[in-house]
Amino acid sequence: MKLWDKGSDVDKKVENFLGFDLMADQAQVKYECIASAVHAKMLHKIGILSEHELNNLIKGLKEIIVLNENNKFVLTAKDEDVHTKVENYLVNKDENSGKKIHTYRSRNDQLLVNARLMHKELLVEIIEAVIKLTKTMIKFAKKYEFVSMPGYTHRQKAMLSSVGLWMGAFAESLIDDLKSLKLAYQLNDQCPLGSAASYGVPKKIDREYVAELLGFSKVQNNVLYCQNSRGKIESVIVSGLSQIMLTLSKLSADIILFSTKEFGYLIPNSKSSTGSSIMPQKINPDIPETVKGYASAVIGFESIIKNAIKDLPSGYNKETKIVKRYTLQSFELTKKSLTALNEYLTTLTVNTDNCKSACSKEIFAVDHACDLVENGLSFRDAYKKTAKELNKIKIPDLGKAIKKRNHVGGLNSLGLENIELELKEINNYIANNKQSNKNKINRLLR
Amino acid sequence: MKLWDKGSDVDKKVENFLGFDLMADQAQVKYECIASAVHAKMLHKIGILSEHELNNLIKGLKEIIVLNENNKFVLTAKDEDVHTKVENYLVNKDENSGKKIHTYRSRNDQLLVNARLMHKELLVEIIEAVIKLTKTMIKFAKKYEFVSMPGYTHRQKAMLSSVGLWMGAFAESLIDDLKSLKLAYQLNDQCPLGSAASYGVPKKIDREYVAELLGFSKVQNNVLYCQNSRGKIESVIVSGLSQIMLTLSKLSADIILFSTKEFGYLIPNSKSSTGSSIMPQKINPDIPETVKGYASAVIGFESIIKNAIKDLPSGYNKETKIVKRYTLQSFELTKKSLTALNEYLTTLTVNTDNCKSACSKEIFAVDHACDLVENGLSFRDAYKKTAKELNKIKIPDLGKAIKKRNHVGGLNSLGLENIELELKEINNYIANNKQSNKNKINRLLR
Amino acid sequence: MKLWDKGSDVDKKVENFLGFDLMADQAQVKYECIASAVHAKMLHKIGILSEHELNNLIKGLKEIIVLNENNKFVLTAKDEDVHTKVENYLVNKDENSGKKIHTYRSRNDQLLVNARLMHKELLVEIIEAVIKLTKTMIKFAKKYEFVSMPGYTHRQKAMLSSVGLWMGAFAESLIDDLKSLKLAYQLNDQCPLGSAASYGVPKKIDREYVAELLGFSKVQNNVLYCQNSRGKIESVIVSGLSQIMLTLSKLSADIILFSTKEFGYLIPNSKSSTGSSIMPQKINPDIPETVKGYASAVIGFESIIKNAIKDLPSGYNKETKIVKRYTLQSFELTKKSLTALNEYLTTLTVNTDNCKSACSKEIFAVDHACDLVENGLSFRDAYKKTAKELNKIKIPDLGKAIKKRNHVGGLNSLGLENIELELKEINNYIANNKQSNKNKINRLLR
Amino acid sequence: MKLWDKGSDVDKKVENFLGFDLMADQAQVKYECIASAVHAKMLHKIGILSEHELNNLIKGLKEIIVLNENNKFVLTAKDEDVHTKVENYLVNKDENSGKKIHTYRSRNDQLLVNARLMHKELLVEIIEAVIKLTKTMIKFAKKYEFVSMPGYTHRQKAMLSSVGLWMGAFAESLIDDLKSLKLAYQLNDQCPLGSAASYGVPKKIDREYVAELLGFSKVQNNVLYCQNSRGKIESVIVSGLSQIMLTLSKLSADIILFSTKEFGYLIPNSKSSTGSSIMPQKINPDIPETVKGYASAVIGFESIIKNAIKDLPSGYNKETKIVKRYTLQSFELTKKSLTALNEYLTTLTVNTDNCKSACSKEIFAVDHACDLVENGLSFRDAYKKTAKELNKIKIPDLGKAIKKRNHVGGLNSLGLENIELELKEINNYIANNKQSNKNKINRLLR
Repeated sequence: MKLWDKGSDVDKKVENFLGFDLMADQAQVKYECIASAVHAKMLHKIGILSEHELNNLIKGLKEIIVLNENNKFVLTAKDEDVHTKVENYLVNKDENSGKKIHTYRSRNDQLLVNARLMHKELLVEIIEAVIKLTKTMIKFAKKYEFVSMPGYTHRQKAMLSSVGLWMGAFAESLIDDLKSLKLAYQLNDQCPLGSAASYGVPKKIDREYVAELLGFSKVQNNVLYCQNSRGKIESVIVSGLSQIMLTLSKLSADIILFSTKEFGYLIPNSKSSTGSSIMPQKINPDIPETVKGYASAVIGFESIIKNAIKDLPSGYNKETKIVKRYTLQSFELTKKSLTALNEYLTTLTVNTDNCKSACSKEIFAVDHACDLVENGLSFRDAYKKTAKELNKIKIPDLGKAIKKRNHVGGLNSLGLENIELELKEINNYIANNKQSNKNKINRLLR
Repeated sequence: MKLWDKGSDVDKKVENFLGFDLMADQAQVKYECIASAVHAKMLHKIGILSEHELNNLIKGLKEIIVLNENNKFVLTAKDEDVHTKVENYLVNKDENSGKKIHTYRSRNDQLLVNARLMHKELLVEIIEAVIKLTKTMIKFAKKYEFVSMPGYTHRQKAMLSSVGLWMGAFAESLIDDLKSLKLAYQLNDQCPLGSAASYGVPKKIDREYVAELLGFSKVQNNVLYCQNSRGKIESVIVSGLSQIMLTLSKLSADIILFSTKEFGYLIPNSKSSTGSSIMPQKINPDIPETVKGYASAVIGFESIIKNAIKDLPSGYNKETKIVKRYTLQSFELTKKSLTALNEYLTTLTVNTDNCKSACSKEIFAVDHACDLVENGLSFRDAYKKTAKELNKIKIPDLGKAIKKRNHVGGLNSLGLENIELELKEINNYIANNKQSNKNKINRLLR
Repeated sequence: MKLWDKGSDVDKKVENFLGFDLMADQAQVKYECIASAVHAKMLHKIGILSEHELNNLIKGLKEIIVLNENNKFVLTAKDEDVHTKVENYLVNKDENSGKKIHTYRSRNDQLLVNARLMHKELLVEIIEAVIKLTKTMIKFAKKYEFVSMPGYTHRQKAMLSSVGLWMGAFAESLIDDLKSLKLAYQLNDQCPLGSAASYGVPKKIDREYVAELLGFSKVQNNVLYCQNSRGKIESVIVSGLSQIMLTLSKLSADIILFSTKEFGYLIPNSKSSTGSSIMPQKINPDIPETVKGYASAVIGFESIIKNAIKDLPSGYNKETKIVKRYTLQSFELTKKSLTALNEYLTTLTVNTDNCKSACSKEIFAVDHACDLVENGLSFRDAYKKTAKELNKIKIPDLGKAIKKRNHVGGLNSLGLENIELELKEINNYIANNKQSNKNKINRLLR
Repeated sequence: MKLWDKGSDVDKKVENFLGFDLMADQAQVKYECIASAVHAKMLHKIGILSEHELNNLIKGLKEIIVLNENNKFVLTAKDEDVHTKVENYLVNKDENSGKKIHTYRSRNDQLLVNARLMHKELLVEIIEAVIKLTKTMIKFAKKYEFVSMPGYTHRQKAMLSSVGLWMGAFAESLIDDLKSLKLAYQLNDQCPLGSAASYGVPKKIDREYVAELLGFSKVQNNVLYCQNSRGKIESVIVSGLSQIMLTLSKLSADIILFSTKEFGYLIPNSKSSTGSSIMPQKINPDIPETVKGYASAVIGFESIIKNAIKDLPSGYNKETKIVKRYTLQSFELTKKSLTALNEYLTTLTVNTDNCKSACSKEIFAVDHACDLVENGLSFRDAYKKTAKELNKIKIPDLGKAIKKRNHVGGLNSLGLENIELELKEINNYIANNKQSNKNKINRLLR
């Protein structure tokens, strides 16, 4: 039985077209049960369900959770969607209470709250993966902190750089990205349950009780805004993920370039690479290349979601159906990229000899000009003089040259310890949230 | 055994990350076999394979095709990819010939040619579905050809229109879209086999023979361009699909608007709609809404593909991995939308009474001004006079008002028969291509 | 003289192609002067400039600021860019000090810091405009707080809503959007000056002093990350602007729909609309339509910026040249949209009669079902019963029906006062920042 | 006086917001005059204008064309738009005929036909620029046809390639792109004049006469489709331009990579490059970098246009206002990129010594394996054997190695002459069109 079944028969082909995303719905089972349990508690609190009915529902929902954990609550193309399947299970178990679970709520409601609960868990996973990768980067940066290498602009050798500066830049980039993810987490952390089909219900439900039990930091107030934010909050989330992908994509571009034989700064680990079916000598940077491809996808998904919702009037509209799919794909591709690059970095080694010997004299033109400045020339004159005597430039002692760059954020002052502090802070924030959510849900299903 | 296996052990997690798209690869089995059969014939022609070896390979490939048709050649996560699985099957069957099938070709080669063969079939399917929908539109337009309705600009009633004009506009739009699809078909109809890993092979293979047997209209010449066009040709295809989706999305926007109770021009068929779990009276335009959502996705996929390839240097690069997935999804969403809207239109009815009674007098202001012009006023003066005497405008006989609009493309001169002629032409083109391809492949596997 | 002039002659056509954005550069003049003044102070502090030289430079820079305010410091196609023009002015004024202003910095440096300073001011302007519009919305929502109107899902009448709920939803949406803008403000509020061409300088410059004088909340640490964040931070900013545009676009979609004669809930003000050259009766919702078009542009610009930078290796790369242009266009379109919609809302009136009379009985089906629930039926049975007796539904007293929706965020509990509190908070934050920045810059140029 | 002026006073701020694009409108002056002249001829033919009135209008329009050519017909912010300014000029010159020019047409009409006329000219310019660049590429490819260089996959050396193959690949790519541009030209080459505000006019205008005089290949039939194709046809055009940019972007990526000191295959010409303000030794590939940035913009504009129109119902809607701006910007960026890269290629030289010496032995692994195959080993065994004896591979005579690659499209069989033939064909097509259009317009204004 479909939840909206009124006896009419919807054409088979139509149903097929509208068919839900099996995988997306399967992923919701757990959250559907948790949100339903809380909704039931609220219905009990306001007198709709008896103690007995509430207990029956909770029992049924727990059963489904366990079945689902054992892959025994599997949605098939024949089910309408996750909401119907769960409700039907409850009705079969105890018709009396089962037929009451949908009181004062709507499928749109459930979809929204399921999505928010799922996003919270997925965002925690992503943030943890980002933290892990940042730590790997810091470790890498410390290991090669004072290994000099040429710094590039326009893909041309420009000035002295170091492996530490290079990798430190990505660690700091991820720190900024974490702020975008934290914002996404906070905007998502609003409880929409009780908004029903966008206009609330004509009865005194207790939305604050529900938000508290589900571990949300606040109720999402205006019931119409709850529905209007569908896709919108997802776009903030995917925007945050796209920031991560931008950082990873740039790192990948560097790795690919620096791993060419021609540059030779990085030594590709054949364990983390694949070969060629026709060229036996190849060791290919498949992982960074794939990450770059995934970055295009995640950036595109953000655009798809925003463009899907931008022209829609208020209230639920089915154009938003695609939001779920591409949000989940964005999570998946970002998670995979974080994990794979973390593995990749742990096996990546630096050819320090190549890095150093590539520091040819022209990258010290600025040093030369700066020394002329210190000897009293104006910078403009020093610049012109240097241009005319490029052959006079000498390669300095590389270690000393690094030491001279000791202003804030320079080669000799990377500030990695500050990054570690920032990392600790966000780690605490997210660990607390995670624990508190877990506690609430455990209490709920006790 | 992996095709690029040289004895080294690639880390499990890496492999997992790089893992192929099971579904995308499964879809290639048939084309992999066809292209391999042709490649084998060519290897025989240039003396690499004996008659006996060729026959063994063809036999094996036919077996796989039959197994695959019966869902008994199923790729799993343990297989590397479709190429490996097919080659392994051939080696197991007859080691001697099996180990020779990969001579003078590369996996990139195979991927490219498989993709082109698949796109040809999928484009034929899409074009057929577009033709079918256009016919349904013409039928609809003829049925309601002279039913007057208000025409809108800025979503405000503007001038007299007709249901025939309205639906005829979409039929003409699809005719233009078919030209984009035809271009995509032609650009895709180039045989890349023989380009190997982007740089050809150091032996005299016969690329023209291969192209002819596979039913391509030409060889894609420069071997490096073959690889460089990966993603690029797909972007032309998806661009063509996006034109279809633009037309369908606009039609859907109209249907949704005209099906509101407030407009009331179209009568939603409850068989093609779903209801609400909480509001029993609802009949929702789910199908046009979903089509609009899918349009966002297809437009986005085109952008993803283009942005994924735009920065890549020449030769194969793994960033293009995502191209396959989003090209196939674009085909799928477009095909579904065409089919569903075709069904939808066949059950959609027009509330002709509402259409007519909505033709209130203000939409005849232009008629009024034009009549003043005919009576000698300049248009500017007629415009101002009309603005001052809006109350004097009379609603004319609607039938006669339509008859007066008999310039080319006007309400009384829709030119539907011309659209039918254009449709016949493209239909012949595509039917010929389809038949010719089928014949060639049948001959091949005889 | 070009800053990078070494005597070689760059081909005219090339120069023409690379030519800077006149308007974008003109907009930087003020920030170029401020940042140069601070840089000069720092050079004085570390002993590069004498007191006298510093004073000469500050005097020259003040002159430029005044000239620019009077439109007398105008860049033309003949100038290379803003940096060159300013430096040349200083050199002409006092060669000695002028030739020293570029010591220990790079054009990339200047571009970055100019952009950050400009973004800070523009973000403040946007945030102020958002706050203003939100206040207008709250005023509107209060005025029509208890005017009932139908609520829609799938563009079909669904349940009872109110004009207050409708407009309140957009006010809350903007409150969330302000959080995205605040994040953008914070990420942008890092001082990149001192990063030079991406790799810092081999001298002990004082980056913290510079950041403090310029009113930044912190130094952007890693010098390579400074350059790597070019485009990235802009993408966070434009992402924030796109959230605003999503909210405005949805509001516009509603206004356009509700202003049709067929819906008739809103009365378009002819003062805020244009007419038609051929249809004298038209009053068109040009403003909301244009806002919707601009939303597409801003969403697209975010995508352009992200895709422009995603494949770039570390260090400055000229592909980022386009970032400036589309960031500024995003600011411009968003600002215009906020201002125009604010005007539009202040003249927009509600046709309360139409709103009420459109509340036909079917939108009370849920009320009917809920009443059955209260009388003891399970929701499922109540749902089916209601579907069978739709004719029994009665239109209730609308005022009372609203009063019954008194759960959090419901029609009778909009929580507008909470929005006002949140608004005050962000207003304080931004006003403080604005004042503090102004004070610092005033002190600087005293 | 505004064309839609009815006496009401539209608020100044509103007008400011809606303000037209000065530059986009200025560019239309010429087409506005041509289309108006043709419209006048048609009005004369159907009896609305006397011979005398027609002559007066044509005279006035010719005057405007001449004034405009001398930059003396300049739109300012005070004009409403190009249509109003031209009409006002005509009215001032001869009130009688001037007030009649707008008979039976609409501003939407004019906008559409102006755009189509402008696109035709711009597409011709682009196609000519593409042909020119392709010729430059062929010349380059011939000059370095047999210079060997390593071919890359995954940015790793893979197999033997040649400079001729490399550049030939881009020439072929542009040949395919020209087909997309030709399709765009054909879809755009439909005359919309007579569609008025989307619904035609209630009088017997002669649309075929108008199309013929304006040099269109056909009338765009259905009047509603004329308006519905606004933005849609532009999206096909910009899609064609984006294909060009994809080719140019890939070429630029190669040039940037091959111009690094580390690869060293190309010698950057300092005349076509800029330097650095702080690093005197730098020669930067600014042009290819900028082209790559522009590619992101053009791809993004296509997406913006499609997303701006995808949700719009039939008939004119002001959301399409942005289409004009981003179509013109796409033309501009593409044209600039074609011209600049053409210049760049003519001064680019190849370091043939570096190209040859980079052909290290591992890129001949495939040759080795293929030779083993020719000696009787199966490919699979040859592959494994080669992997174990990489040290046995010998660098062959490079000239001979190229000669062995003489299959179609291989290093020794580039087929450049075929490209030249295809180029001639498209050149004839476009030259004929250009001449015929010019003749018609000259005749018109005689």
